[in-house]
Amino acid sequence: MLNYICTCCGRKTPATTREPVCSCGGLFELDYTPPKWNDEKIDRKEWSIFRYREFMALDGDSWREVSLGEGLTPTVELKPGMFVKVDYAMPTLSFKDRGAAGLVAHMKSIGVAECVQDSSGNAGNSVAAYCARAGIRCEIYVPEGTSPKKIAMIESHGAKVHVIPGSRDHCADVCRARVKDEGVYYANHVVNPFFYEGMKAYIYEVFEQLGRIPEHVVLPVGNGTLFIGAVKALEHLHQSGAIRKFPKIVALQSEYCDPLYQARKAGKDDPVSVDVKPTIAEGIAIGKPLRGREILDMMKRHDITVVTAPEDKILAARAAVAREGYYIEHTTAANFAAWDRYCELYGPATDVLITLCGAGIKSDH
Amino acid sequence: MLNYICTCCGRKTPATTREPVCSCGGLFELDYTPPKWNDEKIDRKEWSIFRYREFMALDGDSWREVSLGEGLTPTVELKPGMFVKVDYAMPTLSFKDRGAAGLVAHMKSIGVAECVQDSSGNAGNSVAAYCARAGIRCEIYVPEGTSPKKIAMIESHGAKVHVIPGSRDHCADVCRARVKDEGVYYANHVVNPFFYEGMKAYIYEVFEQLGRIPEHVVLPVGNGTLFIGAVKALEHLHQSGAIRKFPKIVALQSEYCDPLYQARKAGKDDPVSVDVKPTIAEGIAIGKPLRGREILDMMKRHDITVVTAPEDKILAARAAVAREGYYIEHTTAANFAAWDRYCELYGPATDVLITLCGAGIKSDH
Ligand SMILES: Cc1ncc(COP(=O)(O)O)c(C=O)c1O
Ligand SMILES: Cc1ncc(COP(=O)(O)O)c(C=O)c1O
Ligand SMILES: [Zn+2]
Ligand SMILES: [Zn+2]
Repeated sequence: MLNYICTCCGRKTPATTREPVCSCGGLFELDYTPPKWNDEKIDRKEWSIFRYREFMALDGDSWREVSLGEGLTPTVELKPGMFVKVDYAMPTLSFKDRGAAGLVAHMKSIGVAECVQDSSGNAGNSVAAYCARAGIRCEIYVPEGTSPKKIAMIESHGAKVHVIPGSRDHCADVCRARVKDEGVYYANHVVNPFFYEGMKAYIYEVFEQLGRIPEHVVLPVGNGTLFIGAVKALEHLHQSGAIRKFPKIVALQSEYCDPLYQARKAGKDDPVSVDVKPTIAEGIAIGKPLRGREILDMMKRHDITVVTAPEDKILAARAAVAREGYYIEHTTAANFAAWDRYCELYGPATDVLITLCGAGIKSDH
Repeated sequence: MLNYICTCCGRKTPATTREPVCSCGGLFELDYTPPKWNDEKIDRKEWSIFRYREFMALDGDSWREVSLGEGLTPTVELKPGMFVKVDYAMPTLSFKDRGAAGLVAHMKSIGVAECVQDSSGNAGNSVAAYCARAGIRCEIYVPEGTSPKKIAMIESHGAKVHVIPGSRDHCADVCRARVKDEGVYYANHVVNPFFYEGMKAYIYEVFEQLGRIPEHVVLPVGNGTLFIGAVKALEHLHQSGAIRKFPKIVALQSEYCDPLYQARKAGKDDPVSVDVKPTIAEGIAIGKPLRGREILDMMKRHDITVVTAPEDKILAARAAVAREGYYIEHTTAANFAAWDRYCELYGPATDVLITLCGAGIKSDH
């Protein structure tokens, strides 16, 4: 039986719990170590992230009623030594489908009938779509100012949308109060450990597709859902002896919202409190990443470099990538601006994997 | 060496030609028969449509500089006996990427430096993206009234956009005049035979993914690029003995634009001239399908049933599919409305493959 373990007090709780966090208030993580990596454990008949299910914390077969066919996205050598993973080639057009598939598969397996989530972005869209597929009632809290188009997409999946006046943070507070008061399941991409189980496949796929992991792996960090999932999968491959060398991870934040960059620079264990300025890299503008401690710990463990994406280079990066054939989200363009910045700061580098995590049309207004 | 063969006069022309059509004015098709299907000829290390390149008319290795990772889209059993192929999980969010990859790979292999195309829809978007990837200059002719968002997406890929006053047909005429007068290459999805080579992979993938072809295959027909590609691939599998029974193909047109439906009903060999009324299934609203004769010939050969998608059922179908998790283009919703219509007319049927050929956000205004 799967357990959660509290990142604060260390206490174990069965993963069947409906509680979002430990009774001490600490965030859960999964008490789970995947079996040693072995190519033969890939289910090559399954064309989704669940082909790696032997390495995912997953109960039973519920994923079959939940999968929309997410993952197995292309990994393309766009120019010599630069690999892009077209992770917007997904059911809801963003990489968050990986996590939502993992999370909703778990919800289905423990019989959740109803959930709430706060996010007006890609994560909210994903969770709404997967709940639709799974037949789970879903309500999404979005802050005021969320575009009607985004709301319409979420509603199209049958989710109820609550527009909350005030900030993004206040919107999360309102949603969490609902979770606390009514005990409704919190299908949140940051809080729920099963989301990260889905994100791990990002790395497994690259490893299967290329037969190796490029020397550099560029990862955006807002709340760090891809970052945490990818690091977990890399640790797994490394500990299994499937890869000899842990790649050099280049994590990025927005220049205008960089709590982890600041913390890393100052050698702190917790995110630094920062003034958040508006950025076009909206998707990574997270002032207080809930799992900041975990992320910083991983960064220390693997000597991960954090860079900031220069705001004034993001649009040019977006245009340059479109000129190579891919129309990407503004936030995704920051990945390229940050890679350029890394090469500027630390010298030219090659053999890099960059994610195209959101489709461009999603951030056009 | 590959040849074209004229569908009118039967004359052969080397496929390296820059001419769009035979000197008699007839459309070209490829004088090419793929080798017998054999699973072992799939290049399982290649994660795009080019894993089936042994069965595609293709010169050399140019596709490597052209592929954006198109294809290998998920095939999901959405409900018992209903398989959907998530064909919008593509670099430019539509199934046309298959064909554009095939076409532009050919262009690259024969050294085309510059091309034109007329289409404001998914095909124009695709061709612009693949030309960007391939480093081929590209100009796209779009009719007036094309949304600024679509134009911006095409332009993002470095393509020059010409907005032509008047109808869609007039826009094509202007583009074709340019081809004729200046000898510039015509990268058109209907006219160029290599586009269909890419579309064939739709069927090869399903066969690889499911290990069989469902009993019913629903295919939209505007100009019939997917239809023709899919029928060719099915004929190939059938002639190779890989499938024993040719599936029942259900082709669909819009109720408001049905030249092939009318022709089939009347037993004609050519599309019937019809009054085109505006339909929300824009993508299939083609009054004069250039390859109508070929399509009707295929329909006769395989006893293909044509149905029309009832206009007043399309929005409901779109909503119903979104409630299952997929947000699809209006034109794609017509596929579902048409399948329902088929079951109404011919009795309930099951084991069907339906394509999700365009992402919903693309047809939102
Ligand atoms: C396109 C895009 N990139 C990056 C991110 C950052 O992801 P995370 O907050 O999980 O680090 C997001 C988050 O929504 C996103 O939408
Ligand atoms: C979403 C969608 N479905 C169907 C079609 C019809 O394709 P064809 O004209 O090749 O038959 C199109 C054409 O652009 C399309 O965009
Ligand atoms: Zn605790
Ligand atoms: Zn001829």
